[in-house]
Amino acid sequence: MTVEAPKRATAAPERVLWKGNEAIAEAAIQAGCDAYFGYPITPQAELLEWMARRMPELGRVFVQAESELAAINMGLGAAATGARVLVSSSSPGISLMAEAMSYMAGSELPIVLVNVMRGGPGLGSIGPSQSDYFQATKGHGHGDYKVPVLAPSSIAEAVDLVATAFEIAERYRTPTMLLADGVMGQAMEPVVPTFRMPERPSDGWALTGAAGRPPRVVRSLHLQPEDLEAHNRHLQAKYRTIEEREIRWATERLDDADIAIVAYGTAARVARTAIERAREAGLAAGLFRPISLWPFPSDALAEVAARTRAILVVEMSAGQLVEDVRLAVGRATPVFFHGRTGGMVPTPGEVVDALRRAWALTEDRSGETR
Amino acid sequence: MTVEAPKRATAAPERVLWKGNEAIAEAAIQAGCDAYFGYPITPQAELLEWMARRMPELGRVFVQAESELAAINMGLGAAATGARVLVSSSSPGISLMAEAMSYMAGSELPIVLVNVMRGGPGLGSIGPSQSDYFQATKGHGHGDYKVPVLAPSSIAEAVDLVATAFEIAERYRTPTMLLADGVMGQAMEPVVPTFRMPERPSDGWALTGAAGRPPRVVRSLHLQPEDLEAHNRHLQAKYRTIEEREIRWATERLDDADIAIVAYGTAARVARTAIERAREAGLAAGLFRPISLWPFPSDALAEVAARTRAILVVEMSAGQLVEDVRLAVGRATPVFFHGRTGGMVPTPGEVVDALRRAWALTEDRSGETR
Amino acid sequence: MTVEAPKRATAAPERVLWKGNEAIAEAAIQAGCDAYFGYPITPQAELLEWMARRMPELGRVFVQAESELAAINMGLGAAATGARVLVSSSSPGISLMAEAMSYMAGSELPIVLVNVMRGGPGLGSIGPSQSDYFQATKGHGHGDYKVPVLAPSSIAEAVDLVATAFEIAERYRTPTMLLADGVMGQAMEPVVPTFRMPERPSDGWALTGAAGRPPRVVRSLHLQPEDLEAHNRHLQAKYRTIEEREIRWATERLDDADIAIVAYGTAARVARTAIERAREAGLAAGLFRPISLWPFPSDALAEVAARTRAILVVEMSAGQLVEDVRLAVGRATPVFFHGRTGGMVPTPGEVVDALRRAWALTEDRSGETR
Amino acid sequence: MTVEAPKRATAAPERVLWKGNEAIAEAAIQAGCDAYFGYPITPQAELLEWMARRMPELGRVFVQAESELAAINMGLGAAATGARVLVSSSSPGISLMAEAMSYMAGSELPIVLVNVMRGGPGLGSIGPSQSDYFQATKGHGHGDYKVPVLAPSSIAEAVDLVATAFEIAERYRTPTMLLADGVMGQAMEPVVPTFRMPERPSDGWALTGAAGRPPRVVRSLHLQPEDLEAHNRHLQAKYRTIEEREIRWATERLDDADIAIVAYGTAARVARTAIERAREAGLAAGLFRPISLWPFPSDALAEVAARTRAILVVEMSAGQLVEDVRLAVGRATPVFFHGRTGGMVPTPGEVVDALRRAWALTEDRSGETR
Repeated sequence: MTVEAPKRATAAPERVLWKGNEAIAEAAIQAGCDAYFGYPITPQAELLEWMARRMPELGRVFVQAESELAAINMGLGAAATGARVLVSSSSPGISLMAEAMSYMAGSELPIVLVNVMRGGPGLGSIGPSQSDYFQATKGHGHGDYKVPVLAPSSIAEAVDLVATAFEIAERYRTPTMLLADGVMGQAMEPVVPTFRMPERPSDGWALTGAAGRPPRVVRSLHLQPEDLEAHNRHLQAKYRTIEEREIRWATERLDDADIAIVAYGTAARVARTAIERAREAGLAAGLFRPISLWPFPSDALAEVAARTRAILVVEMSAGQLVEDVRLAVGRATPVFFHGRTGGMVPTPGEVVDALRRAWALTEDRSGETR
Repeated sequence: MTVEAPKRATAAPERVLWKGNEAIAEAAIQAGCDAYFGYPITPQAELLEWMARRMPELGRVFVQAESELAAINMGLGAAATGARVLVSSSSPGISLMAEAMSYMAGSELPIVLVNVMRGGPGLGSIGPSQSDYFQATKGHGHGDYKVPVLAPSSIAEAVDLVATAFEIAERYRTPTMLLADGVMGQAMEPVVPTFRMPERPSDGWALTGAAGRPPRVVRSLHLQPEDLEAHNRHLQAKYRTIEEREIRWATERLDDADIAIVAYGTAARVARTAIERAREAGLAAGLFRPISLWPFPSDALAEVAARTRAILVVEMSAGQLVEDVRLAVGRATPVFFHGRTGGMVPTPGEVVDALRRAWALTEDRSGETR
Repeated sequence: MTVEAPKRATAAPERVLWKGNEAIAEAAIQAGCDAYFGYPITPQAELLEWMARRMPELGRVFVQAESELAAINMGLGAAATGARVLVSSSSPGISLMAEAMSYMAGSELPIVLVNVMRGGPGLGSIGPSQSDYFQATKGHGHGDYKVPVLAPSSIAEAVDLVATAFEIAERYRTPTMLLADGVMGQAMEPVVPTFRMPERPSDGWALTGAAGRPPRVVRSLHLQPEDLEAHNRHLQAKYRTIEEREIRWATERLDDADIAIVAYGTAARVARTAIERAREAGLAAGLFRPISLWPFPSDALAEVAARTRAILVVEMSAGQLVEDVRLAVGRATPVFFHGRTGGMVPTPGEVVDALRRAWALTEDRSGETR
Repeated sequence: MTVEAPKRATAAPERVLWKGNEAIAEAAIQAGCDAYFGYPITPQAELLEWMARRMPELGRVFVQAESELAAINMGLGAAATGARVLVSSSSPGISLMAEAMSYMAGSELPIVLVNVMRGGPGLGSIGPSQSDYFQATKGHGHGDYKVPVLAPSSIAEAVDLVATAFEIAERYRTPTMLLADGVMGQAMEPVVPTFRMPERPSDGWALTGAAGRPPRVVRSLHLQPEDLEAHNRHLQAKYRTIEEREIRWATERLDDADIAIVAYGTAARVARTAIERAREAGLAAGLFRPISLWPFPSDALAEVAARTRAILVVEMSAGQLVEDVRLAVGRATPVFFHGRTGGMVPTPGEVVDALRRAWALTEDRSGETR
């Protein structure tokens, strides 16, 4: 099934000028999303609004629920029937979904959750941010579970990763997160939409009505600890498989780089400009861009670290990704950090300065690292 | 103010036989807790029940709220008035509190939240667990914030850490967590109650009625990103101060140890027995027990690692603490892991076996590590 | 638009064997219902289930909300956009909708609410009842408003009255209620479905997006008492128009009757059998059946009362309709009552006995009443 | 137990100048109210605020709940333990309590609910109103139940009726309502507080902990219709007893009156002034003031009607009390109505005009009615 995508202003015959929020929404529709549940919050509001208009046009389900709590639990219910489900929100709303995400991980329900991050903590600001990295990759809900997290750094990539997120969610029966930030959500960019609709895997587990077959059970409750431990072993084995197969990253100009920036999302775009300028000024910088934040591309990064003098992590947060980078790199290569918080975006100039400081501070180590 | 603590069965004149849940509750009362909010969930139910009975006796506030979401937000409101507030739940209920915890961190509101962890993810089991370590220490709510986390491994220590938790919460104006597990909550132990009531710091910020003075504001909203960034710098500086001053850990028999177990809470108690047995069998094991999980005692642990051949992390989870241990230890000392999940508790025998495996696997490294 | 109705078992070529709940649901669909919101409760569950299956098939909106409160407020929101909306529940769930019904009356929003009454008060029983008559016709929500209430006494009539309810709701911009009971909802009856789709009146008031026209406002808030009084005068004038135009009732065998039973819904069916038996025994009884409970057919009933010796009201309640009957009849004709409560249905035998008692007690008045 | 009432400004040594909301709150405290639950809404906010300050001072329970729904259900829970409970709100908030009121009636739980009515329907205005008369006396919740309703028309009377409301609630184990309006709530009046604390009747039914005795059950669920019918017969018998014993009304200047005004609450105060003026102008008017709205003083009013030429009902509504008056009076005496809505209060001048119209329109009947 292909659904005709609506055209907006087009820059070239095949290009559409879209906000990230709209592009993500349309990508989900083109990926065969059956049902969307949400509750309005800036800066992801256009995503919900797009779905509000388009989903009913296509005879699909759109519900603006009573709250984020209601939205994610409606998502849980719909996912249990085998539907392809998208839920989206921004930081505070995502926090309200912690319990249900743990329930879905435990129940092995596929769903794609989009977080268009804003400045925190608390109500914070409505400016863009990357300060929910820890929440997305570590400990949102309770219990031993992991959530694949994909972080696009362009609207075209976001469009592609929406389809990938559904693939991962359904292949592994796991909630999966698309982690964007307010800039990604709000900025307009010409896109050549190349949508993709993942094949529907067998949903032999879904609650589709038990007529003519034995009933199925979807649950996260296993009252006997022995049973729950067996279930956890199964989950952990699944997470190891995901760690083996679903690691994604991109590199730019690393071949001859003396110093590597690690950044994702909007921060990676700023880094790209900074690298340009740094190279003009004689500093050979390159970019390592994790696309899957969990599983994190630790080995690939360690390999890069092994042949660079320093690592600079750039984030729109007080420093969260930097912990995964340090865990990957160990103590062999010095890891520096530059971050802005609260809705502020680092400028390329700041990043160039940070590169220079890192370069200067590692001067005496230049011999050993190359 | 000292409130007479109720006596239960006494093993010796000064000893009281208490469940951990009850002892934590009474410790909070003796620490001057003004208000408690909760919602029943196993295995922390006795904590709420104790408060239900005792708090009204003392003319203090007890509310069984409509839900965990209501409970933590009532806690937020009460904390904003300068009250000493306790909220407790178990894993799924704690997940529901993610948003409010972020709000309180952003608003700099002191509160103590007790999580008596059960097996997860999802509804899981009602057996004991330590699988909310990541949630407690990393990314429960959204935004750049940290929560001090204290993990008792005996009921006497829990009693003491409740007072410490209030001290930290109020000294730094931060939500603070006491992380226990179902065994800690349910097991009965004779305690010599040595309660402590922290002094009340100035609450010159609290909303106590603005008659005769300018109104005060408690909020996490800072619409201007510049303001929110300044606020985040203030928060991060506070977190660094906490990292400098509030690290807690204990060691046992590490002086002559060749191998160190790292464990907290109930797992540390199992480790203690295992160490006894291992030493009887000729393997010189010792225990490094983090008490503050954030800030994590990385330096102290690194120092221990530097003089042991191997580290064995024992957890009632699929492996969460082990990540902080690896981050602290780097690649210098091999870190092994033994964990049980879903409500299962490791046995001392299992731990001895794990020690032996770690010993055997590091045989060729014995020269280099000591 | 005509939507093909699904066939179930058919008694004759054109007959369908349907439960009342299912027939009401399908009638709403055939009447062009755009959106349904509900929450499961016995004895109306099959209505929700029918909608759950059929509405998505037709590309229409079905939402099982988080609660009855959420359901009716979603209904309010959908109605504000000009959608044809059905909400259903049973007694306790209807009570939860009191506030929103008042809001919709104040905002002049059309919606059809079905109450399949069960025994009360409180949780009561799941047996059939008519004990929400007062609630439906008098004082459910706050403020000066009225709700047209239609009470079918057969499944075929229910099918017809669903369309009528939408007509009234939209013609007068008012929430409208279909009042059924558990027997009506649960009993199966062969129906020759004669569906009807009311024309859509102009919805020049609905919130359909303000592009190219001035924005519209739907609200029940009028902060200036003068404005609210003017609004109330408008509402009261509307209610008087409804009282003039929308009174419905049916009579059976009243022409030669000496005694009249007044009953609606299932009680009217029992009354019919009782009248048969009474006439066999020589007592000329007839039936006055209000179909619109508000506006109540007071004048028609008064006219009947003027030429009968006694009135017997039969209800599945402790006596509620009987008050409207007394108000209509005044003191000229004696009004007797027979009711069963709690899920019990009066038997024809009981009703015949009650007729006999009424007859005997009015013996000396026979002269004056005819 | 007598609790010292706080003094405010005093007009005479023994007089206190109080708002109605404050006086009602303090009266409840002095009546031994153990627990208060509420949620802020104009025009009853001062009642909640008074309780927020005073109840904790006295070591009693005050909870501002998450919503009106939560407040009334907390009230239900507290009442089930035998506590003396007050809940208050204004019109929209009262609507949200319909389900719980039915549950409490079914469970025979004593509670006093105060409604400080505002203009409706819907959000309406925050002006004073009497437009929830039907809701209070007829059909708020589902099922066959009745709620005693007391309507004070001065602050001193409100103080007295609060104690009476607790007495009735506990004597008959029934939710009981105090029906005030925004004027009653907001206006300040000097009061000589004569508080009264009702004796506590045996609460041999309350859930006080089953140690040493068989457990008790408080519930509204009776799954067997036969059981629920028996329970309903018991309830109806109780309501008949209340109808026999708890009818309250007052009359003023009726002895020589040719025309009677029927009014309650603030409308009765307006009526009093109007009667003064009418008498000055030669029209002998008097006042019949129902104090209990259910049970309604029908017989007393019928007796008054029998000796007056006309009845004028004055309400701050579109006409609700007037229905009970017509039911009581029958068709023997003409019943006229004057009402204002939406937060408007009738003026004495308007009422005098209405009296004159009623007088003129009944001129030719003067012979027959006296």
